[in-house]
Amino acid sequence: MKETLRNVFEKRSGEYTELYLTHISIDCVVLGFHEGLLKILVLKLKEGSKWSLPGGYVGKEEDIDDAAIRILRERTGADHIFLKQFRTFGKNHRNEDIFEENSGLWMAQRFLSVGYYALIDFHKVNLSLDLAEITVIAEWKDVKNLPEMMMDHREIIDQALIYMRRGLNYYPIGLNLLPERFTMPELQQLYESILNKKLNRGNFYRKMMRYDILTKLDECRKIGAHKSPHLYRFNIDNYQKAMEEGFKESW
Amino acid sequence: MKETLRNVFEKRSGEYTELYLTHISIDCVVLGFHEGLLKILVLKLKEGSKWSLPGGYVGKEEDIDDAAIRILRERTGADHIFLKQFRTFGKNHRNEDIFEENSGLWMAQRFLSVGYYALIDFHKVNLSLDLAEITVIAEWKDVKNLPEMMMDHREIIDQALIYMRRGLNYYPIGLNLLPERFTMPELQQLYESILNKKLNRGNFYRKMMRYDILTKLDECRKIGAHKSPHLYRFNIDNYQKAMEEGFKESW
Repeated sequence: MKETLRNVFEKRSGEYTELYLTHISIDCVVLGFHEGLLKILVLKLKEGSKWSLPGGYVGKEEDIDDAAIRILRERTGADHIFLKQFRTFGKNHRNEDIFEENSGLWMAQRFLSVGYYALIDFHKVNLSLDLAEITVIAEWKDVKNLPEMMMDHREIIDQALIYMRRGLNYYPIGLNLLPERFTMPELQQLYESILNKKLNRGNFYRKMMRYDILTKLDECRKIGAHKSPHLYRFNIDNYQKAMEEGFKESW
Repeated sequence: MKETLRNVFEKRSGEYTELYLTHISIDCVVLGFHEGLLKILVLKLKEGSKWSLPGGYVGKEEDIDDAAIRILRERTGADHIFLKQFRTFGKNHRNEDIFEENSGLWMAQRFLSVGYYALIDFHKVNLSLDLAEITVIAEWKDVKNLPEMMMDHREIIDQALIYMRRGLNYYPIGLNLLPERFTMPELQQLYESILNKKLNRGNFYRKMMRYDILTKLDECRKIGAHKSPHLYRFNIDNYQKAMEEGFKESW
């Protein structure tokens, strides 16, 4: 029989005290993209509870960005992905004792949570990894139709979407999300999914070309007698450079 | 005779353990603007040491944003100012024991520091406030010519400038920094100081007017026979609305 969540927490409380920094947690807003759909990975810690973001704690000697990468890998199997810190959530009483009583457990202390967002091809995620001990359900939910989230996790998601959309003005996106060769309409569809709005085709094309991260190939995709859009691939050097330095800013 | 920093830290160690959350600090990048100059407030904790950012800790029952406001007020006397969280710095070993030995003091533990930036009229800041106990010097330094900073404080400053410049694409700025009535060239000078570059006058004008936060007055400033630029003031309602909701985004 699967242990109850309370049993697991009680068993782990001493171990977590040894391993992790007090008062600091990490929450990951994992956005999955595949074939034009944008979804968020959410979990249930126990039957009947609200939904939660995947998260974890920071090792006593661990860099915070390394902790975020480890947590995401442990919980989804995903690696080498775009992961970006966006905000730290630190309201007093943001915690919610999921046992509806003051449990005194390590996990029930006050946490300031550092939010990270990730964007990955959701077919590369192994949802069963996280089910070993704590989580009972892991699911992809439509960004436009989210279930009731625990604590301030809905605010964390809303903020992640704001930061990620703004990030599109500064950083390239698409590597590891699109096939190696893709058409401009496919790239535009990725942006439209994230921004949740239609973009003008001509403006999108000009803007992307100005970023100088695409190489136009001498091939077209044959998708019909009158439609054969050009194929592109990312110029990896320029893409990486833009990831580090950012695009030229608006002002 | 002024107590040594070590004495102060030893005296406060027990009190801080009672008052504050462990492992979490706040660092403030306070940018001062006055008459076209942009400067950063930096401190020295003791003679001969590197420079430091003003910072502090989070009370056990205190919201993190409230802590940042309190810290800034305690250390500068400044209130009702634009203060924005931008990033949390959490590398292991980012701390530097200013006593060059493992002191075992509360202040020498590992801290993850939540960075906030503030932009204020630097004539409204009382630099003497912070000199009571810990700080020996508090000075405004030119952003373009910063002294050697302790720990990762230089990185925190550099990141604050990046985030603040980007913020200009989303949020209005200028209230409490400019006189109640100001000219378009004065507003442009504020933006140019922050961005550290010249802007095109016509583009600047059109962009600002599109934001719909300015009211053009029926008065001009008389500064010469042939120069009498129009005066503007902020439309406070629209300004506040833009502060909350942000300007329309680029994409």
